[in-house]
Amino acid sequence: MNDALQPVLLAGAWQPSREPTGSFRAADPATGAAIGPAFPVSGGSDVEAAVAAASAVAAELAAAPAERIAAFLEAYADALDADADTLVALAHAETALPAPTRLRGNELPRASGQLRQAAKAVRGYAWTHPVIDTAAGLRSHLAPLSKPVLVFGPNNFPFAFNAVAGSDFASAIAARNPVIAKAHPLHPATSQRLAQLAHQALRDSGLPAAAVQLLYHFDHGIGLRLAGDARLGAIGFTGSRAGGLALKAAADAAGVPCYAELSSVNPVFLLPGALAERGAALAQEFFASCTLGSGQFCTNPGVLVVPHGADGDAFAAAAAAHFAAAAPMVLFSAGGVEHVARGVDTLRLAGAQVLATAPTDGQGGFRYPPTLLAVDAADFLARPRELQTEAFGPVGLLVRTADAGAMLAVARALEGNLTGTLYRAADGSDDAAWRAIAPVLRARVGRLINSKMPTGVAVSPAQNHGGPFPSTSHPGFTAVGMPAAIRRFAALHSYDGVPDALLPVELRDANPGGVPRLLDGQWTVADVAARA
Amino acid sequence: MNDALQPVLLAGAWQPSREPTGSFRAADPATGAAIGPAFPVSGGSDVEAAVAAASAVAAELAAAPAERIAAFLEAYADALDADADTLVALAHAETALPAPTRLRGNELPRASGQLRQAAKAVRGYAWTHPVIDTAAGLRSHLAPLSKPVLVFGPNNFPFAFNAVAGSDFASAIAARNPVIAKAHPLHPATSQRLAQLAHQALRDSGLPAAAVQLLYHFDHGIGLRLAGDARLGAIGFTGSRAGGLALKAAADAAGVPCYAELSSVNPVFLLPGALAERGAALAQEFFASCTLGSGQFCTNPGVLVVPHGADGDAFAAAAAAHFAAAAPMVLFSAGGVEHVARGVDTLRLAGAQVLATAPTDGQGGFRYPPTLLAVDAADFLARPRELQTEAFGPVGLLVRTADAGAMLAVARALEGNLTGTLYRAADGSDDAAWRAIAPVLRARVGRLINSKMPTGVAVSPAQNHGGPFPSTSHPGFTAVGMPAAIRRFAALHSYDGVPDALLPVELRDANPGGVPRLLDGQWTVADVAARA
Repeated sequence: MNDALQPVLLAGAWQPSREPTGSFRAADPATGAAIGPAFPVSGGSDVEAAVAAASAVAAELAAAPAERIAAFLEAYADALDADADTLVALAHAETALPAPTRLRGNELPRASGQLRQAAKAVRGYAWTHPVIDTAAGLRSHLAPLSKPVLVFGPNNFPFAFNAVAGSDFASAIAARNPVIAKAHPLHPATSQRLAQLAHQALRDSGLPAAAVQLLYHFDHGIGLRLAGDARLGAIGFTGSRAGGLALKAAADAAGVPCYAELSSVNPVFLLPGALAERGAALAQEFFASCTLGSGQFCTNPGVLVVPHGADGDAFAAAAAAHFAAAAPMVLFSAGGVEHVARGVDTLRLAGAQVLATAPTDGQGGFRYPPTLLAVDAADFLARPRELQTEAFGPVGLLVRTADAGAMLAVARALEGNLTGTLYRAADGSDDAAWRAIAPVLRARVGRLINSKMPTGVAVSPAQNHGGPFPSTSHPGFTAVGMPAAIRRFAALHSYDGVPDALLPVELRDANPGGVPRLLDGQWTVADVAARA
Repeated sequence: MNDALQPVLLAGAWQPSREPTGSFRAADPATGAAIGPAFPVSGGSDVEAAVAAASAVAAELAAAPAERIAAFLEAYADALDADADTLVALAHAETALPAPTRLRGNELPRASGQLRQAAKAVRGYAWTHPVIDTAAGLRSHLAPLSKPVLVFGPNNFPFAFNAVAGSDFASAIAARNPVIAKAHPLHPATSQRLAQLAHQALRDSGLPAAAVQLLYHFDHGIGLRLAGDARLGAIGFTGSRAGGLALKAAADAAGVPCYAELSSVNPVFLLPGALAERGAALAQEFFASCTLGSGQFCTNPGVLVVPHGADGDAFAAAAAAHFAAAAPMVLFSAGGVEHVARGVDTLRLAGAQVLATAPTDGQGGFRYPPTLLAVDAADFLARPRELQTEAFGPVGLLVRTADAGAMLAVARALEGNLTGTLYRAADGSDDAAWRAIAPVLRARVGRLINSKMPTGVAVSPAQNHGGPFPSTSHPGFTAVGMPAAIRRFAALHSYDGVPDALLPVELRDANPGGVPRLLDGQWTVADVAARA
């Protein structure tokens, strides 16, 4: 049976799955038809082999020169770009995401660019945050975990968040840790192709081939056992709240830090002046953002806070018209369609009314009609939990507020989110409202946005693609943006009285690379002066 | 009944405990006699009042000017120094720690100095790690959690780790979060006095009086309920592994980051050259470090790896002579004595032999005789878990190794520890052994020490008083050292397209305070140039 299934990448080689517990195929979301070859569902034997192989090379990877790590990341980035035709075709077939605009024009360059940014960070050493206290004889920096990092990729970014190519992968490797990649089972062939390129780039750069393992799928029980394996250094997860919380609980019990990006409704507040100034344009912006990628973005604007009154009513009507004029949109899977439908049911049962829904068009595949709902702030405040249910698709909920006090009350009732947005008038007339609401919203979100929809997450050192629980599992870290994202997969190391020759390069007296270091309280690229 | 008990500090006022579940008194560890007044064991009402009051001032504290926070920390530091006579007398009575050398000469200045270092960090803003990306329009920094931080103080540092005065307290306040301090019940009067000084300093500096709450004690169930309260922003805990893991589990389930310092045996490797060079001196150093503070230090050298052979035997004999010539030492509590005795039993049952133990002297109080044990490396490797049991007192275990390979094997079997030490010969003859063992030890400890005993933890920006699980709950953070310790109690905040006037001061274009910032990829104290 094994030979009929696609091989997994374990211990530095493509090999048949050991004792798979089942098999699966991808589907074309536009038709629902199964496509591509059969892939194994891995059992405990594959998982054990992955942990053992990754653990065995962890020390070698931790000791690898920065240049070799950077060379791998760049070779892999180049391979992604060179293989664009194949990768885009595979990903389009498995996800139905638009090939020219999204996959080739945006996401693939994002993924390769992210790998190159990670390489640059590795060469520059600044991510290790070197601190030197000559009086105390102490030097510290961030260092590899010296254990494997387990990365779970999500369904919605086949390249840029892929377990074997995305931000978590690049970050974990940049911190010189081996990766056990658990692909998302909705795009196994894309993930396999990426892993083939990674495997080749590992060999070309002289890193241990077992620095990257790839499994396509395993069942929930196996996943929980793996997440709770104390041999892991950390976990990076992007996915559903329920799945992520279960993995986090298992990891927590074993003392394994689990960086999980879980869920977010990304509240957007339309302040009255902005609404009066450009309500119709905002309705268009909102519809475009809410339905981009069929609404399958972590930063999708799921909750819009809109004042009552003529301007708010006009906005709601304009937005409803956009939704009503749309066609059902292709989601990634039948399960995704069911999940969105359940989310909309939850919102309706909690008191939300459907304002508009796109008419069905009789096409097959995994489709869901863009849907706009509305609820009064008083009802929202009565059932804040249910009415913050994330429907991962083209679904938005307007929360209508009577006055500034109600807007503030809605902000106070918000859970932790990745983003929060306030739209202000250009003439400054909303600035008092901003100053009242922004601090409340600020405390509840990772990225506070001015007058812009939340979709579109720049890969920037000042980015925060993270936020307070339950949007993520830790409020101090971002999943996107080099070098900050790398720090999740590092341990703080202090050296006490250790002679120069026995220190890591970026902590030695001489600083030929010009690494910025906190030296006796000052940031500097200078050498440490000869000691008395 | 309540009026007969000492008041708790809740909602900005000293007030009777609400519905205490019991009462307790401190004891003089040297005699075992109860001393001082009766303190309440808080029930759910006090805890709820503490969380509610702290939550209510969290936004005000988050918005407080840095100068006001710094002024509080400095006023409190000054008050500690000015009140030294009273504080030292109280702490000596409750802990039996030496008053002149330890409490007055070392720990109180450490505590006040730590508060001043936190104040300096607050004024300098560098701890917030400002990052500006002008091209992307993004700016990020570390910001208050805007939720209360719960701090559990340990038994062994009545000042420098006290829940209402120590490093966690200073760090949480420096990050502009309210603190709910849970004192250690072995030194309630000391904690009360500290809280009185903190309370006065809060009022003098104009911070909300409810920024600091003090409870002395509560039972395990109440503690777990509190740790799992999602209204908390984070927890700082220093104490036993069992207690800390239970609190961590409760906090994890609620998504509350719990920074717990749990346990450590601080392995020390005596390389052959160092042993040949200065074995007798090392025996003295080891005995002094192992029995300092009656061995009640987190960084106590609990496991010494010592080669077989003449030099190793001579070292063991010399160390044993020191232990045999000592007198029983006063520990903090009867429970502590029992705990050490259980730890020694565990070591013996796992195969360790007692080499020497101080003779009993018939004195009362909470005493335990300094005890040295030894085990062969083969036995250690057969039962590594039991033989790494922390006995929190004047107890050391020698692990005897046949060769370099056995030393490496012992290093590989080590759990996560706060520190790891390698003693090298001055003539460089141990450097090959260092290069073989250090990477293995490095991955398992927070601070790697050269030729020095691990006790003595400098308050330095390059310090790491932290380490891999299970020594602490997260490998990336330190509990000691400004400004790094502050970052535990902060959230990453990104601003996207937000106008200058609506940004936090350290992220604005103008940088009059000269805050070091990562501006478009370069560390600089410059202003942001006027944008096109």
